Amino acid sequence: MLFHVQMTVRLPHDMPAVQADELKAREKAMAQELQRAGKWRHLWRIAGRYANVSVFDVSGPDELHDTLSRLPLFPYMDIEVQALCRHASSIHADDR
Amino acid sequence: MLFHVQMTVRLPHDMPAVQADELKAREKAMAQELQRAGKWRHLWRIAGRYANVSVFDVSGPDELHDTLSRLPLFPYMDIEVQALCRHASSIHADDR
Amino acid sequence: MLFHVQMTVRLPHDMPAVQADELKAREKAMAQELQRAGKWRHLWRIAGRYANVSVFDVSGPDELHDTLSRLPLFPYMDIEVQALCRHASSIHADDR
Amino acid sequence: MLFHVQMTVRLPHDMPAVQADELKAREKAMAQELQRAGKWRHLWRIAGRYANVSVFDVSGPDELHDTLSRLPLFPYMDIEVQALCRHASSIHADDR
Amino acid sequence: MLFHVQMTVRLPHDMPAVQADELKAREKAMAQELQRAGKWRHLWRIAGRYANVSVFDVSGPDELHDTLSRLPLFPYMDIEVQALCRHASSIHADDR
Amino acid sequence: MLFHVQMTVRLPHDMPAVQADELKAREKAMAQELQRAGKWRHLWRIAGRYANVSVFDVSGPDELHDTLSRLPLFPYMDIEVQALCRHASSIHADDR
Amino acid sequence: MLFHVQMTVRLPHDMPAVQADELKAREKAMAQELQRAGKWRHLWRIAGRYANVSVFDVSGPDELHDTLSRLPLFPYMDIEVQALCRHASSIHADDR
Amino acid sequence: MLFHVQMTVRLPHDMPAVQADELKAREKAMAQELQRAGKWRHLWRIAGRYANVSVFDVSGPDELHDTLSRLPLFPYMDIEVQALCRHASSIHADDR
Amino acid sequence: MLFHVQMTVRLPHDMPAVQADELKAREKAMAQELQRAGKWRHLWRIAGRYANVSVFDVSGPDELHDTLSRLPLFPYMDIEVQALCRHASSIHADDR
Amino acid sequence: MLFHVQMTVRLPHDMPAVQADELKAREKAMAQELQRAGKWRHLWRIAGRYANVSVFDVSGPDELHDTLSRLPLFPYMDIEVQALCRHASSIHADDR
Repeated sequence: MLFHVQMTVRLPHDMPAVQADELKAREKAMAQELQRAGKWRHLWRIAGRYANVSVFDVSGPDELHDTLSRLPLFPYMDIEVQALCRHASSIHADDR
Repeated sequence: MLFHVQMTVRLPHDMPAVQADELKAREKAMAQELQRAGKWRHLWRIAGRYANVSVFDVSGPDELHDTLSRLPLFPYMDIEVQALCRHASSIHADDR
Repeated sequence: MLFHVQMTVRLPHDMPAVQADELKAREKAMAQELQRAGKWRHLWRIAGRYANVSVFDVSGPDELHDTLSRLPLFPYMDIEVQALCRHASSIHADDR
Repeated sequence: MLFHVQMTVRLPHDMPAVQADELKAREKAMAQELQRAGKWRHLWRIAGRYANVSVFDVSGPDELHDTLSRLPLFPYMDIEVQALCRHASSIHADDR
Repeated sequence: MLFHVQMTVRLPHDMPAVQADELKAREKAMAQELQRAGKWRHLWRIAGRYANVSVFDVSGPDELHDTLSRLPLFPYMDIEVQALCRHASSIHADDR
Repeated sequence: MLFHVQMTVRLPHDMPAVQADELKAREKAMAQELQRAGKWRHLWRIAGRYANVSVFDVSGPDELHDTLSRLPLFPYMDIEVQALCRHASSIHADDR
Repeated sequence: MLFHVQMTVRLPHDMPAVQADELKAREKAMAQELQRAGKWRHLWRIAGRYANVSVFDVSGPDELHDTLSRLPLFPYMDIEVQALCRHASSIHADDR
Repeated sequence: MLFHVQMTVRLPHDMPAVQADELKAREKAMAQELQRAGKWRHLWRIAGRYANVSVFDVSGPDELHDTLSRLPLFPYMDIEVQALCRHASSIHADDR
Repeated sequence: MLFHVQMTVRLPHDMPAVQADELKAREKAMAQELQRAGKWRHLWRIAGRYANVSVFDVSGPDELHDTLSRLPLFPYMDIEVQALCRHASSIHADDR
Repeated sequence: MLFHVQMTVRLPHDMPAVQADELKAREKAMAQELQRAGKWRHLWRIAGRYANVSVFDVSGPDELHDTLSRLPLFPYMDIEVQALCRHASSIHADDR
């Protein structure tokens, strides 16, 4: 089941660099683990912004929320979710 | 070069069904041709709305505009474009 | 799987009353059929507006879109979808 | 009398974890007490966001405000209220 | 029970003057009847706009919706509703 | 002369409780004094929000601004003003 | 008493040119009459838009509404009103 | 004097193709004449939208408005204007 | 050349009163100097808000920016600029 | 390949002046270097705001993001990107 997720990161300007670096490193590790597990299907940077567009492939809203809320940067992100479904004009039976 | 495109279709309510059907059929044919050519990489329906989220893989803004503006439904769509680039946390060298 | 759906109806002012009445009658019949089938769990009127708040219980985004797009009033509605999941403070294991 | 309430929580990033945990524990206790009392009829998490959609069943706006403003997280929440009424297409005489 | 209602009227520009006048006359008659019945407590024009700010005193959201949706101009109005309650700093036990 | 005023209070989360309580007590005293003087005609709480809807009866914009800007909570409020006038459908010659 | 008024004109595209010209001519005549009477103190075009910024000097909201609503283009304008008062840093006792 | 202008064209869907083509041809001719005269310094298409970003070099707001309001598509465009000035970090004394 | 400027002041709540007072005193002195020089033609307070509506008469965008950016409160203001020009219905050849 | 970029700077009010000055000096140096390299084609100040409108000429979204995200003020800027392409009415084959 696919969900389109756009995340915008807003780190507080007074967060110590060490803390920010540690958060980002953990975020990256978890993002890559989720990609390897096939849960985080696509991850693109939006040019010019500290933001990404992603596509998740999960069993439903519960797993989606569970996944997103465990991300180290979750408390610092604005997140917009859109549920996706197959488009009648797609040439793929299952476009992931 | 990847561009994230969200299209919302707003057909006038007084458009004759025959004309709407013909437009949609031509739109579908062109969408599938562009997918087969590798230009329109992803095409998903947003659940509950007459709208889609798409990813285009083109040579630049000129080809993107040329492609979108030739779509039969172009005059009836609100289109939002975001330029995408590789995300540092992506496990893919080239996620298309 | 639960989805929160808010629908706002905007019928064109020049639609003949006969056509509007027929659309509304078919909408009502389908809404009641979906409620009886357990797909449309809740349906409330928002006071003062031609709009409703609903909760759908479907197998996923595909069934949700399929259901909503077949509603007779679909072409005349602004629809906002939010995927719901269990809240950790809910006293219900499965609040539907 | 039913009210639809959407709450988005915005805890200050510099709130000590101990204080945040204590607030959340008290919020949870009060939310469950209100659910058991039949006042807080539904409580769903919105997938991907620190936010919920709820339905309250109270005697009127006074009790609604009294209830919401006593929640421990009230000072940290953006709250949107919509008054609900019976929908003419509902199959329930009293959908709570 | 008090509700704050802001109504903005948007008559189609191509509505015949006769029809508009008839609608407005019926709207005025019903507004005055509701005021005399004590249901429509306050009715003010917003300076410079075809809009009003009103306070309704009804038994709940059902009566509010029933009242508003029967107004002749209802199909042509954008309506925003806010539930009101007693303010702790009010000097009136019951400010209507 | 009537003005419709909606005030939303946003106290900084790090304001000491003693200071907040003192501000609110002074705000309440001044609000009640202005009500007794007939300047602050109506004061309602908006259910679920730290906000109010008010109607002021003053000699003009200068007195309105002078009154609002002397409120103890003024620096912490978002304020929206709408000038009101008699509505042609009002049954009151002077609805205050 | 001064009011700041911003008017944006939106004539329907299908209005016959003769009717539009007649409306504009009557609007201009009334605008100039109101300027000569000292009611419409300032009238500026906003560069690039079919819109103006104006300052009215009237006895209160009632006269303001009465004046604006009698303008021939009133049904075709979006109007925003802000009540003005003397600024403490103004060097004019009465800046009109 | 430079002004940044963003124009979005919204032709009515029921405008006959002949009329639209004639309007566009006249628009193009005037745009090119203004470019050759050095008034319309830059003209770019925004990828994916029937819109442009432009930079005008005129003697002031009066000439800007006079120029824009004479464009054949002016009645069908949403126009946003921003006045530009030299940036302290620009390497050009006069970047046009 | 006239520019319409709306300024909204947002002083940080934790700014010491001495610093705020000093800033406001310098702002007032400079505002009055610019008024006496004929650059700051009009300065009105918007009733109920820490904001003003102003009209500047300067040689162009460069002087406007130079003037505004030297105001002591500039770092704390949201500023909206609109270029003004003569209105065809104005009875003044040069309304300043 | 051209991208239209609008940057709005929001420095925290509590940033020490020394740090802000150092950031701005480094931003200016890098902006001028990028201009000399032909990457940052245009850089204009928006009159009255701590913001600029720019045009970048880069090889694609990756270079654009790489360039913008290395700017010293990047963490303090709201950035909006629009991909530009040749306009059919431009008299320039390659308007940079």
